[in-house]
Amino acid sequence: MPWTLARRTSRMNPSAIREILKLTERPGVISLAGGLPSPEGFPIDALREASERVWRDHPREAMQYAPSEGYAPLREWVATELSQRGVHAQASQVLITTGSQQGLDLAGKVLIDAAAAVATESPTYLGALQAFAPYEPEWLVLSSDEQGPTAQSLMAARGARLAYLLPNFQNPGGRSIGATRRAELARTAERLGVPIVEDDPYGELWYDAPPPPPIASHWPDGTLYLGSFSKVLAPGLRLGYLVAPPRLLAKLLEAKQAADLHTPGLNQRIVYEALRGGLLATHLPALREHYRERRDAMQAALLQHLPPGCRWTRPQGGMFFWITLPEGIDAAALLAHAVQAGVAYVPGAPFYPTAARHNTMRLSFATVPPPRIEAGVAALASALGQAGASLCAHAGAEAIP
Amino acid sequence: MPWTLARRTSRMNPSAIREILKLTERPGVISLAGGLPSPEGFPIDALREASERVWRDHPREAMQYAPSEGYAPLREWVATELSQRGVHAQASQVLITTGSQQGLDLAGKVLIDAAAAVATESPTYLGALQAFAPYEPEWLVLSSDEQGPTAQSLMAARGARLAYLLPNFQNPGGRSIGATRRAELARTAERLGVPIVEDDPYGELWYDAPPPPPIASHWPDGTLYLGSFSKVLAPGLRLGYLVAPPRLLAKLLEAKQAADLHTPGLNQRIVYEALRGGLLATHLPALREHYRERRDAMQAALLQHLPPGCRWTRPQGGMFFWITLPEGIDAAALLAHAVQAGVAYVPGAPFYPTAARHNTMRLSFATVPPPRIEAGVAALASALGQAGASLCAHAGAEAIP
Repeated sequence: MPWTLARRTSRMNPSAIREILKLTERPGVISLAGGLPSPEGFPIDALREASERVWRDHPREAMQYAPSEGYAPLREWVATELSQRGVHAQASQVLITTGSQQGLDLAGKVLIDAAAAVATESPTYLGALQAFAPYEPEWLVLSSDEQGPTAQSLMAARGARLAYLLPNFQNPGGRSIGATRRAELARTAERLGVPIVEDDPYGELWYDAPPPPPIASHWPDGTLYLGSFSKVLAPGLRLGYLVAPPRLLAKLLEAKQAADLHTPGLNQRIVYEALRGGLLATHLPALREHYRERRDAMQAALLQHLPPGCRWTRPQGGMFFWITLPEGIDAAALLAHAVQAGVAYVPGAPFYPTAARHNTMRLSFATVPPPRIEAGVAALASALGQAGASLCAHAGAEAIP
Repeated sequence: MPWTLARRTSRMNPSAIREILKLTERPGVISLAGGLPSPEGFPIDALREASERVWRDHPREAMQYAPSEGYAPLREWVATELSQRGVHAQASQVLITTGSQQGLDLAGKVLIDAAAAVATESPTYLGALQAFAPYEPEWLVLSSDEQGPTAQSLMAARGARLAYLLPNFQNPGGRSIGATRRAELARTAERLGVPIVEDDPYGELWYDAPPPPPIASHWPDGTLYLGSFSKVLAPGLRLGYLVAPPRLLAKLLEAKQAADLHTPGLNQRIVYEALRGGLLATHLPALREHYRERRDAMQAALLQHLPPGCRWTRPQGGMFFWITLPEGIDAAALLAHAVQAGVAYVPGAPFYPTAARHNTMRLSFATVPPPRIEAGVAALASALGQAGASLCAHAGAEAIP
């Protein structure tokens, strides 16, 4: 092989979760492992009709090269929408991305030098770790309480290139950052001069009450805000956006051009056509109801079936429960027993940038109907009952030299 | 501003061409400047029907997350298609990209360390320079003759991370690499251990005779081959592909996941639906005829109107003529005069990785009907006649200390 790989490739890895999902895609296994949204929640009719209008009215424009910034009416829509959530930005500050994953990659490319510090929550979104890692940062882990990452721990991040924060219903942890904490984090970051990358794909998927205004509303000049249409419409469109202060946006735009010239015009036009008629006003309440029922089913099943010593917080939105098992139980080792019992989940370790806690797991309720959620949780409890004690004892034995 | 930009951002720049295009988009100006394909050449009906089938038969699959590798039937199609052109690869070696621009970015990310050498033609595709530059390579320029970059000049590239080669109807130069030269370059590169990135977006747009087999056919283990649907179908779909030896492909796939998770499933399915019925068998001959007429019109107009001292080679495919003006005429300085006379083009300097030759320009015939091509070239000749002598004298004067 003549190929010499760049040093940064040593920081790339096959997605641990992808590998796990392959193992768990057996017939008969109830998968609580996936990170996919519910396909029943996709507004197919509205998107199909929007697609038909694009093909009827502007097919050649949709098929031609288009501006790297994105489709102007869609950028306007995003700016207007965000202003209603408290983030006041011009359409010129909006860059349409090929999914918000691309926003993470562009942020890494423009902001992270090798050996520079990047502050993250822990656990945090695995896709962000994968996007940032090739730029070779040092991870600086923020500690959290029930209100989210603490401003106190952010104090240690002076000099970090960015603090990566997930305000709402975090993947994988399910938790949100409280309203007061948002303001406090923004104030602290501003004082330290540490910019914030705020990643908010789940903000519209609230089931109890709308979330407070984004962190970006407290410090617009120091926050790069990322949003996505993947969870409110459909992820296969690969359509997200970022909002940034003008000078940063100019650099992100140059990186975007180099990355893929522009996000497909067809997809941008379909989404704009679907949104402009006010689709979300009817779609979002139905979507929230669809997910709320599943969230409630999982909460009830966990309360009913999980043995003592397991801990979790009921998420107020999003798609995930995060379970902490009794100390010493390795969720990765438990997985084979769980699959045997007929249920799959994702062990928590890959979501930690450093110092993984192995007695954690992520459960998704998004794609599973309520009766199967209950059956899946019951199977998990059964696997825990059968194998948990031995795994625990084993781990304990190992811990004694 | 709290934002500290990564060092690599100093190698990013606003696209010079984008800025030029803005200047030249005046009403009444005939633009030979663009790099866009002809929208009349998009097979709109076939793509619309394909889209309708996808929305009818598999809407939820098209809207859901999908494998990072790409849609399996499309990967199969690419592998079969390439085998007919002499590149024998398994479907598992095909990665679908968000335009072939993304293939360039992924190649740079996986192969280029800061200060590593990258060998390129000169002039070369500007998008590749923009994709590679943020990874901070040193450019190593290959010299060319009428058969393409010479194997002799490649000898100086020992230790380079890659040689970036455009086999067919190069953007901007219009020239191809001859069959014998391809074999010779592959042999030399293999002996030196310098891998090749072969970028072939225009291969199907031949107007005289089909091009010889790709360089990859001579050295599959050492060549990363990039292809695109942008020129044969439509660029707004943002759909390209790369073919790589298995171990390299695995790393490119990890980079792809981090970059945008996957290319939109909707777009991949539409293209596969359009292709599977054999669309290209009828579409490509018509498309070649459409462009051949324009190529011939531009060749005739150049012969008729350009003053002595201008040189060019008639391209056998693609979209571009590359004109070398008499020594001392700066094509960038001439542009304002040309726009005044009613025609726009792209000055050649931005296409050079180093040591730009300022007396060059790129003319596109792709989007302009033949009568306007002639009018545009006539206007260019008039601007050259009026301003050329003075620009030339001015440059000459400057050259005398």
